[in-house]
Amino acid sequence: MTRAPHPRRPTPAQVSSARRELTLKLGPSRVLSEPKDCEAFARDESETELFVPDLVVLADSPSAIQITLEIAQRTEVPVTPRSAGTGKTGGAVPIAHGIVLVTTGMNQIKEIDRGEGIAVVGPGVILQDLHRAAEAEGWFYPPDPNSLDTCCIAGNVAENAAGPRAFKYGATRDWVLGIEAFVIGGEQLQVGHRTRKGVTGYDVTSLLVGSEGTLAVFGDVTLKLIPLPEQTLSMMALFPDVASAAAAVAAITDNGAHPRCMELLDATTLQAMRDAGNPVDVRAGALLMLDVDGEEAGNLACAERIADACATVPFIDLLVAQDASQRDRIWAARRAMSPAIRRLSRFKLSEDIVVPRLKMPDLLLRTEEQAQRHGVRWLAYGHGGDGNLHVNFLWDAPEDSGRVQAAIAQLFRDTVALRGTLSGEHGIGLLKQPFLDLEQSRPLIDLQLRLKAAFDPAGLLNPGKIFPSVGHSTC
Amino acid sequence: MTRAPHPRRPTPAQVSSARRELTLKLGPSRVLSEPKDCEAFARDESETELFVPDLVVLADSPSAIQITLEIAQRTEVPVTPRSAGTGKTGGAVPIAHGIVLVTTGMNQIKEIDRGEGIAVVGPGVILQDLHRAAEAEGWFYPPDPNSLDTCCIAGNVAENAAGPRAFKYGATRDWVLGIEAFVIGGEQLQVGHRTRKGVTGYDVTSLLVGSEGTLAVFGDVTLKLIPLPEQTLSMMALFPDVASAAAAVAAITDNGAHPRCMELLDATTLQAMRDAGNPVDVRAGALLMLDVDGEEAGNLACAERIADACATVPFIDLLVAQDASQRDRIWAARRAMSPAIRRLSRFKLSEDIVVPRLKMPDLLLRTEEQAQRHGVRWLAYGHGGDGNLHVNFLWDAPEDSGRVQAAIAQLFRDTVALRGTLSGEHGIGLLKQPFLDLEQSRPLIDLQLRLKAAFDPAGLLNPGKIFPSVGHSTC
Repeated sequence: MTRAPHPRRPTPAQVSSARRELTLKLGPSRVLSEPKDCEAFARDESETELFVPDLVVLADSPSAIQITLEIAQRTEVPVTPRSAGTGKTGGAVPIAHGIVLVTTGMNQIKEIDRGEGIAVVGPGVILQDLHRAAEAEGWFYPPDPNSLDTCCIAGNVAENAAGPRAFKYGATRDWVLGIEAFVIGGEQLQVGHRTRKGVTGYDVTSLLVGSEGTLAVFGDVTLKLIPLPEQTLSMMALFPDVASAAAAVAAITDNGAHPRCMELLDATTLQAMRDAGNPVDVRAGALLMLDVDGEEAGNLACAERIADACATVPFIDLLVAQDASQRDRIWAARRAMSPAIRRLSRFKLSEDIVVPRLKMPDLLLRTEEQAQRHGVRWLAYGHGGDGNLHVNFLWDAPEDSGRVQAAIAQLFRDTVALRGTLSGEHGIGLLKQPFLDLEQSRPLIDLQLRLKAAFDPAGLLNPGKIFPSVGHSTC
Repeated sequence: MTRAPHPRRPTPAQVSSARRELTLKLGPSRVLSEPKDCEAFARDESETELFVPDLVVLADSPSAIQITLEIAQRTEVPVTPRSAGTGKTGGAVPIAHGIVLVTTGMNQIKEIDRGEGIAVVGPGVILQDLHRAAEAEGWFYPPDPNSLDTCCIAGNVAENAAGPRAFKYGATRDWVLGIEAFVIGGEQLQVGHRTRKGVTGYDVTSLLVGSEGTLAVFGDVTLKLIPLPEQTLSMMALFPDVASAAAAVAAITDNGAHPRCMELLDATTLQAMRDAGNPVDVRAGALLMLDVDGEEAGNLACAERIADACATVPFIDLLVAQDASQRDRIWAARRAMSPAIRRLSRFKLSEDIVVPRLKMPDLLLRTEEQAQRHGVRWLAYGHGGDGNLHVNFLWDAPEDSGRVQAAIAQLFRDTVALRGTLSGEHGIGLLKQPFLDLEQSRPLIDLQLRLKAAFDPAGLLNPGKIFPSVGHSTC
C-alpha cells in the first residue's frame, strides 16, 4: 500500500524562522511559543500521547490564517488546524509538532438570513450559539453532536459531525452550502454557493467536509437552515434486551414513522446509570429514546405509529412526555449517562462504529465474546436508528491497555465483516488509521492520497492523519 | 487561467484497434461501429451540434465496463459515459467522438432492504422504477427530476439531479451512500458505505456525485430511503405577480411551514398554458404549486400556516386539494406546462440558474430588460423555494440564435451579480462552461483540474466537459 510520508518534525532553525516571521506579521499576542503556553494544544479529547506544538497561532481574522499558511509553506513547518479541540480520534493532535493554528477567536455569527434560511458563521462559533441564534429567528440547524455546548463549527465541518438528530436530518455535510477555505500557502478558495441549491463544478465543499483538517483551513461557513418545527415530542421505550430494541427500530420505520432520533442504551449502560443514582426502570435491559418533531398534530399520530410498532416486538413500556417538564426528565436521563459511565473506570475509550441496524445485536454479541476472551469491560449506546454505536471499553490499570487494543482491533474486524464502517461521526484521525485498510482497498486509499496531494503537495497540512504513514506508531 | 487540454479525436488506427479488442472481448452484439447505429448516441437533450461516436459499447455487466475502460486507456481512445441521455447541458455528448459507454442495460433493482431502508440499484435503473419499488415496500426515495419516467440513476448521480421535492429533501447527493465506481483503466473502487451513516476517509462518494461523468463510470449505486409519508397534500396559490409569489415563499417558511415543494410559474408560462386550452385562472399573474407531506393531521396544520402566510402578501386565492382527484388536477396543470411551452416556438433553450429566492423578482426584471434589448422572447418557472429558475428563451429563426446567446450570457452575469449560481440541477456540461469563470476563481478551477487528474491523468474520461478547454468552441 502507498503510505503517506512520515510526518517530519521541523528543525529548530525552521521553527525559529517561522516564529520570527509570524510574530512580526501577526504581533506577539497572537503567537505562542513557550512550551507551558503551547501545552494546552497538545491533544484533543482522545487518549493519545501529548504532542506539544512548537508554535501556536491564535487567528482572529482570515488574513491571520492566510499569513500563517503562507509562512508555514515557505518555512516548511507543518500546520495542524484546531478549533475547540473536542475531537475524539486525534484529528487536532499536532503529531509533527510545528504550528497549531487555532480559529476559536473567529466566533462571530455573521448572518442569519431570515428570508433565505441561510446562516453565515465564523469557524470558531460554538454550535449551541448557532442553534440559539437560528431558533431566535424561527429557523433550525439540525446537527447536534453531544459536545454541542463546547464544539465549534469548523471542527463540526472538519469531522462531518452528526449526533442523535442525524437519523432524520443527516450529518453536517447535508447542511454546508459553502466554505471560505484556505489552502497551504494561504490562497483563499470560496467553494460552494450561498443559494440553497447549486451544482456548478465538482462538489469541493462536500470533499472538504469530513477531511479532518488535511485539505484546507476553514474561515466562514455558509449553512442551510430549515423552519423550526412547531413541537418536539419525546418518548422512552423500554425493552428486555438489545435485540428487541433493534427489532423495534426496524418495526418503527416499517410502520411509517420517521422520528428525528432513536437513541439506544444497552443493559450495562442502564445499570451504570442506576448505580449512579438515576431512576432507570429496573425491568429495562435496553432502552430507546425517541424524539418526533413537526406539527403537534402530526407528532401525536407518529407517536401512535411508534407505540404500535413497539407492540410487535418483545417490549416492556413506552413513556410519552406529556409536557416540557416530562421531556426534560427523559433527556436528563440521557445527559446523566456520560457522568455515570465516567465513574465506572479510570480509563475509557469510546469507539464509533456503524453496522446495518439489524446487525447491532450480532455485533454486541461478538463484542461480549471478545471482551470475555480479553478480559475487558465494555458497554454500548448510540444512535440506534443509524446503527451507529459508541462501544466503550473501560479499564483501570494502565497495563491493561494492550488487552483493550486487542478487543478494539477485533471490534473493527467484526464491524467490517458485518458490512459496517469504522466511523459514524468521529472520523479516522490518528487512532483509527491503523485499521483503515480493513475497510478500504489499496486503490481507494491511493486515490485519496492523490486528492490530498492536489491540495497540499508537500504534505504540510495536518500531516499523519487519516492515512497510515510510513514508520509511525499511533497509539 | 489553466484550461483543460483540448479533446483530441482518436485516429482511425486507434479506433480500429479499440474496436477489434472490444469486439473480441465483449462480442459483436455489444459493440456498435456503424455510423447509422452510433448516431443515436450523438447528443443528449441539449441543443448542441451532433458528435457521432466512433464506437458505442452497450455494457450489461461491471466487467463490460472494466474491459471498456481498460481498452480505452491502452488505445488512448476517449470514453463518454452515458445512461438515458436525458441531460440538458451536453454532459453525455461525445465531443471527442471515441467510445460512448452505455449502461442502460444494467437496469436491475438489486435490493430494497426493508429492514435497513437502503436500496442497491444498477446504473441503468429508471428513476420511476426505483420510486415504485421503494414505495411498494413502504419506503420513499425523494429525488424527482422532471424526466423521472425516462432518466436513469447513473445520470441522476452524475448530474446530482434534483426536482421539486429537493426543497425539503435535498438533491441526489443527499441520498447516495455508496457507489461502485470504475476509473479509467478499469479499476473498481467501492466508495462510501452501505450503512446509513459513515465518515471513513474523504467523501469520495460526494465528489463523484455531480462530477458529470468526468471522474468515473458508475456501476451499482447504494441509496438511502426514508419511510413513505402517510399523505401528500397539494395546494395551488394564485398571485398577481412574481414579486408577490416570491414574497409568499419567504412568508411561508417564516411562518414555520416546510412544504416539500414550492413550484413557481410566471405570467408568460400561465398564458401559454391558457393558450393551449388549459383552465388556468385568468386572475393569476403568478402561481405557486405546493405539496406538503407527512402525517395527515400535520399536513392540515401546515396548510393553515401556508394559507396564513399567503394572506400577508398580495394574493388572490389558495386552492387545497380535498382528495386524490383534485390533487391530480392540480398536478395535471403542471404537466400541461411543458407541452404548452413547446408550442410557442421552434427553438427553446431552458436555463437553470439559482439566485437567493427573494432576488427572483430582481432577476426576472433584469431578464425582461435584456430580452427587450435583444428582442427575444422568454418565460420562467421553476423551484421557487430554492430560488432555482428555469429561464426559457424562445425563438423561431435559426439566425436569431446569436441574440439568444447574448441574452443568456447576460442572464449568467446577472445571476452571479445577485450572488447566485449558474446551475441548480442541470450541471455545467458543455453548454455552460464558457461561463464557469464568471462564478469560480482561477485557483478554484485549477484545483478542480488537479482533482480531475488524480482520477484520470490522461484526460480520457468524458473530455471537454465542465472546464473550458483550449481552443474549443462549444455552441
